[in-house]
Parts: sequence; C-alpha cells; structure tokens
Amino acid sequence: MVVAQRSTTAKLLNFANELADISAAAIKPHFRKMLSVDNKAGKGSYDPVTVADRAAERAIRAALARAWPDHGIVGEEFEDIAGAGRYSWVIDPIDGTRSFIMGYPTWGTLIGLRDGGKTVIGVMNQPFTGERFWAGPKGSFFARDGGRARRLKTRKCAKLTEAIMATTDPLMFARGREKRGFDAVKSKVAMTRFGGDCYAYCMLSAGLVDLVVEASLKPYDVAALIPIVKQAGGVMTNWDGGSAEDGGRILAAGDARIHRQALKLLAK
Amino acid sequence: MVVAQRSTTAKLLNFANELADISAAAIKPHFRKMLSVDNKAGKGSYDPVTVADRAAERAIRAALARAWPDHGIVGEEFEDIAGAGRYSWVIDPIDGTRSFIMGYPTWGTLIGLRDGGKTVIGVMNQPFTGERFWAGPKGSFFARDGGRARRLKTRKCAKLTEAIMATTDPLMFARGREKRGFDAVKSKVAMTRFGGDCYAYCMLSAGLVDLVVEASLKPYDVAALIPIVKQAGGVMTNWDGGSAEDGGRILAAGDARIHRQALKLLAK
Repeated sequence: MVVAQRSTTAKLLNFANELADISAAAIKPHFRKMLSVDNKAGKGSYDPVTVADRAAERAIRAALARAWPDHGIVGEEFEDIAGAGRYSWVIDPIDGTRSFIMGYPTWGTLIGLRDGGKTVIGVMNQPFTGERFWAGPKGSFFARDGGRARRLKTRKCAKLTEAIMATTDPLMFARGREKRGFDAVKSKVAMTRFGGDCYAYCMLSAGLVDLVVEASLKPYDVAALIPIVKQAGGVMTNWDGGSAEDGGRILAAGDARIHRQALKLLAK
Repeated sequence: MVVAQRSTTAKLLNFANELADISAAAIKPHFRKMLSVDNKAGKGSYDPVTVADRAAERAIRAALARAWPDHGIVGEEFEDIAGAGRYSWVIDPIDGTRSFIMGYPTWGTLIGLRDGGKTVIGVMNQPFTGERFWAGPKGSFFARDGGRARRLKTRKCAKLTEAIMATTDPLMFARGREKRGFDAVKSKVAMTRFGGDCYAYCMLSAGLVDLVVEASLKPYDVAALIPIVKQAGGVMTNWDGGSAEDGGRILAAGDARIHRQALKLLAK
C-alpha cells in the first residue's frame, strides 16, 4: 500500500514537470513582447494580467482535465474546480507579473499538488533562464535546461542579525501589523532586498537567502513553494506560526532558529 | 580622419566586449557559491564585496594595461588610474552585489569607455543568463549567448500616469529631497518595481520599462548605461537635468515627454 502510494506520488511529480513544460511553451513566446495588459482590479489599483498568464493556465487546465479528470484545480486566472478525490492542483502561471512585464527573469510558474490540505509536490519553473526548482517526497531539487538535478539545502543562520532577507514590495507593509512586524525584522537583519516573488523562496531553498517575509499573498502564490522550502530544510509558516497553505502573511526561514526569532517580532 | 576615428571606436567596442568575456570568466565560478563577503563600509552599513568582484576587476585591469597602457581606469574595487590620453574606462565588475550574493540573475558587469568627459561605449554583461547589452556609435544592441544582435529601442510613453517605473531600493529615498522627489513620482506612475540595479536601465532600453529613478549612485554605476539608454532613444540625466556622468541622483526615461514630467517633480 505504501509502495503503491509512493509510485502514485512519483507519477504525479512527473506530471507536475510535464505541466511546467506545457506552461513554458505557452508563456515563452510572450516574454519580452508587447503584451495586452488587462487591469483585473479596475481603476485605482494595478494587477496586470497578461495573455501569457491566461494561455498558460488554459493549457495546464486542459492537460489536467485529460490526465486527471477527478483532480481539483485552484488557479489564479479562472474558477476553482472542486474535484472528486483527495488531490487538487494549485497553479500560478506567472508569479511575479510585474517582473514579467518589465522583462526581468525573476518570475516563475508555480505548480503545487495538494493531498487533502497539504501541498506535497511543488514546481517553480523559470522558462527564460531554464531553471527549475521542484520538491516531492524525496527532497528538493534544482536543474537547469533539463540538466543534472542537484539537491537543494538551506544554509545555517543562527542569528537574525546575520540574516539576508528577501521580500517583494514595500507596499505589502504599508501600515498596521504588516508595517510594525516587517519594520521590526528589517531593523534586525543584515541586509534586505526587494523584488523577489517566488524566486526569493527558491534562493532560500538553495542556501543563498536566509529569510523571506511577505504579506497579502494568495494560496496559489505560496502552495508550490511550501514543499520546496520544507524539503530543503527550511521552515515556512504564516506570521502566527500556523500553516502557510492559506497565504496571507508568510514567513520562510532557512534555519529554524531565525524563524523563531523573526516570529517573535512578527507576532507582536 | 573621421574614418580613422570610427575605426578606433569600433576597435574599442570590440575590446569592451572582450573585457566582458574576460570578466565573465572570472565571475561565473563564484556565482551561487558560498562567498567570502567583506564589509567594505565597516560597521553600521553593509556593502558586500565579493571575491568575484575583485577577481573580475583585476582581470579587466590586467587586460587594459596590456592592450591600452595609456588609457585611464575608474573602477569600483581599486585605485583610479589617470591615464595619458583622452580615453578612460569606467568599470563596475558586479553592479547589483546584493542580487549576486542572493543568487538572483539581475546583476551585471558594467564596462564604459569615456572619451573626455563623455561615455561613448557601454557594455552590460549578465554571465548567468548569457545576456549582453551594449552601445557604440552605431546604436544600442542586445544579444544572448553570442547570438544575433538585435537593436534596442525605448518605447513611447506620453504620460507619467501610464509609466512603469523601476528602481533598486527604497532606502535610496529615505529622507529629504530624495524622499520628496521619489514619492512625488511614485504617486503618479502606474507601477513601481524595486530590485533593479543595472538591469532596470537595460529593460528601459529594450522598451519594457518607462522610467528609472535612483539616488546615491557612483559614476561607475551609471557610465556604461548612459550610451545604452541614449542610443536606444532614451534620456538620462541627473535630477536637475544635467549630465548623468557623475552619478548621484539619476533619472532615465524611454520617452523625453515623461522625462520632462518627472524632472519637474524631482527638481522641486
């Protein structure tokens, strides 16, 4: 029974990688091209949705409907599908839309597979650089251009004062608890860099970043990244120490010690 | 005489590209490796200097001393060399040191050639993605992995309210004129993204970003980028509308109209 389950998971991880290939084919022609950018959120805010975003999610959904018609789907661009079984896919075709439309190579396609409430398989794919980060039951891995897989491992960092922190946008921390919490951590760490999106979590998993602090995230912004971070040895929760699966305010750390230290400051 | 000068410039542009290859060879083995990060600025601030940074600048300086012993050199890592003639090279081996040590592919090697006070040749090289942006008298160009050169051209943007702005770090605008000026522009533009460094100017030159606003830059942070931006059709000055060559507060725009509009807000 355990063997059967393992082989199913291996099959699903292979399929997650196929989805990454499928989405890359849909996205690549549009990167650094003039794009028709809709304004999803209407006047006053700016949430670009690109042709590529929708084309990729359509392609992923079509492939899922063919191969696993009973699986659920949670995606950024279209309606959720509940599914009939234990599995559901959590998809963000282009995480880091701003990076994408500005031509930066730090966006990624996020593909997560949930078993019940827990994301057990995650893929982050960067089609322009050819980088892929993924995690399944055997650990977290990285490969470039389909080359040799290398195991990802977070690095040690005992003290917040030695930590390199990554986040996406200061606007996430404009006021209230977000501002207080983020400012408290930022004033402690050795260095902060903005403009991360999913790339930040992958670099944390690769042992190059110690801490990622974010807020206002959607479940599809984080699901695929949770197994990548955790299987690399990191800790990833919300700011109250609970599950990261629902998004919101997120704290990821390569070392459990600085996760605890940051959590104290963020929970205040 | 004009012909002779043109052929000299072509030769120097070829040499700038050789320097980019030389520096890439020195830097690449260190990217995403554990690096010995010095703290150049001492306690209280953080200005990482990597082994790669110094190795690349040493290699560039050695090549320059062999090929053009009478040229001047302004570099980030070592003493300036005055030179005996009209030409001097302005070098930043790794612009975007934070990106580099965090594993992001948005840093670049900047190689500029000044003829008197004006940078006439510029190269931005990104060894991990294989991207190279360069400019000489014939225009601004881009190629990847040594492939076909494509001409860079900024895009039209008539109004600040439609502009996509890039910058590096909110810390550049912590107080005083920097804060007032940046906040005024930021409140007008459609979108702002942090974490740019030299990559932002190259994406502006490629017609994907409309505006770059920065402060506290050194001459070697900007020199190579000036001809790339200008030869692509952009405008690049300081916040008072004067030459960008000395660094400091910098404003680059793909369209002269939004350059004028931003300048009004920044000059206040």
